Amino acid sequence: MEFETRLTEIADKVTVALDQLIPPAQGPEADLMRAMRHAALANGKRMRPFYVIETGALFDADHKALLRTAAALECVHTYSLVHDDLPCMDDDDLRRGQPTVHKAFDEATAVLAGDALLTLAFKILASDETHNDPAVRLRLIERLADASGATGMVGGQMIDMLQEASPRDLNTITRMQRLKTGALISYSVEAGAIVGGASANAKHALAGFAQDLGLAYQIADDLLDATGDQNVVGKTLRSDEAAGKANFVTILGIEGARERINLLAAQARQHLDFFRGRANILLHSVDYVLDRTR
Amino acid sequence: MEFETRLTEIADKVTVALDQLIPPAQGPEADLMRAMRHAALANGKRMRPFYVIETGALFDADHKALLRTAAALECVHTYSLVHDDLPCMDDDDLRRGQPTVHKAFDEATAVLAGDALLTLAFKILASDETHNDPAVRLRLIERLADASGATGMVGGQMIDMLQEASPRDLNTITRMQRLKTGALISYSVEAGAIVGGASANAKHALAGFAQDLGLAYQIADDLLDATGDQNVVGKTLRSDEAAGKANFVTILGIEGARERINLLAAQARQHLDFFRGRANILLHSVDYVLDRTR
Repeated sequence: MEFETRLTEIADKVTVALDQLIPPAQGPEADLMRAMRHAALANGKRMRPFYVIETGALFDADHKALLRTAAALECVHTYSLVHDDLPCMDDDDLRRGQPTVHKAFDEATAVLAGDALLTLAFKILASDETHNDPAVRLRLIERLADASGATGMVGGQMIDMLQEASPRDLNTITRMQRLKTGALISYSVEAGAIVGGASANAKHALAGFAQDLGLAYQIADDLLDATGDQNVVGKTLRSDEAAGKANFVTILGIEGARERINLLAAQARQHLDFFRGRANILLHSVDYVLDRTR
Repeated sequence: MEFETRLTEIADKVTVALDQLIPPAQGPEADLMRAMRHAALANGKRMRPFYVIETGALFDADHKALLRTAAALECVHTYSLVHDDLPCMDDDDLRRGQPTVHKAFDEATAVLAGDALLTLAFKILASDETHNDPAVRLRLIERLADASGATGMVGGQMIDMLQEASPRDLNTITRMQRLKTGALISYSVEAGAIVGGASANAKHALAGFAQDLGLAYQIADDLLDATGDQNVVGKTLRSDEAAGKANFVTILGIEGARERINLLAAQARQHLDFFRGRANILLHSVDYVLDRTR
């Protein structure tokens, strides 16, 4: 219960922060800002901001600095959804319970709104209003670029695109997901640690936690895609099935996928032993991932 | 002659730098890096890198720092070309004398290669290999995000998209171009000044120079679009005419556009008086802009 309250609180704060950070809709280009707002202010779970803020709290990091860092990360996550949903990519109509940006506006606006959200993320992190010292800000920017660029998220999306309808084995899918979704989830935990000035050992434990959690989260996502209710989940489901794409569930089966999630969740919890009970809220977040699939 | 030699020298150095900065083409996602290289290593004039480096040289700035800053800026310029050429945007087949990225690869790869180039720009600027001190790196990042995001280049492209085939007056077109192309040209000059630690007065003179030059450059581009030889220019021409779009030439006429360019060029040169003959290479660059249209 405490976990879900915190998740909702953080989601609300991040939405307010994004509302202030995205430029107002003005001039002939106003639809660009409207599209950015449509995507970024929609009802998302805000899991990545949650991990930034709760990881940073472990080290008593400044809350304002964490919130802005979380908002920047959510801009990157949102841009990736807008571009992934494009007709030339996954061609999805529904996202966060509402029409995708290219449906609500048009394709050109969706490309540009994504571009602008990505750019805004770096603007937010570079700004001195972020209250981090310059070295911390630069580290956050460099690691975000690593996690989201060609050797991270965008690279993973490229693999996903190329391998549609072609046979994929477990190793290929695992690497693709580590890049496509894992890198940004790992960044969310790392960012909290960077802002909080965590020790190398603490960072190492958190990196292990994030890697196991990220993979569990993705397998849970594939389970949800196979078994969930579209009206509850708020995005197009059965998309892998429709595209003839292999994923964790088509390879492991539903029971095999559940077992794998449980194993990864146990490992993720073990990494948190390092914090000796001070990371309870992160522990609860693991249960939340499990609960999504029940 | 000196000017063209310098422009070629800088173009070659920037291409070598980009070749080293773009990740190698490896793994199943190799086409992503190939597409980034296709776009970024193609034969561009590299005007923006030229202005970064030659403006920085006015203040004896570190050459390595300038070159990496220039390479980052060229990544942003290149990404904007890749996305602007997409079928849902300007739908162009030819760029820098070769097929556009979505023609040589496909649309999804073009979207992702653009995303990855934009992300790489911020990675390059944040990295300590850039040899700038942290405050300078942060300032470069923040101003690049301003110049290229929703309130800069992307905002300008949005106006350009929305107003296709709708009536446009000189004020609207001037504002659109100030955002779409002017902001990044201004940034190129500002970046050199930031890296070089220029005084506020020097920055002010350079900002005036860049604003007049950028507008002259865009009017010259419209002239070239109306009167140039596609085989020489290396990109699709008569595109505004084909789309029924108003531009500086359709509004001012060919002679009126030439007059306006001459006026702006004279103003641009005046701003350089501040440097009392030390900005000769920048002066010559103004002639180059004029020469393009003769």
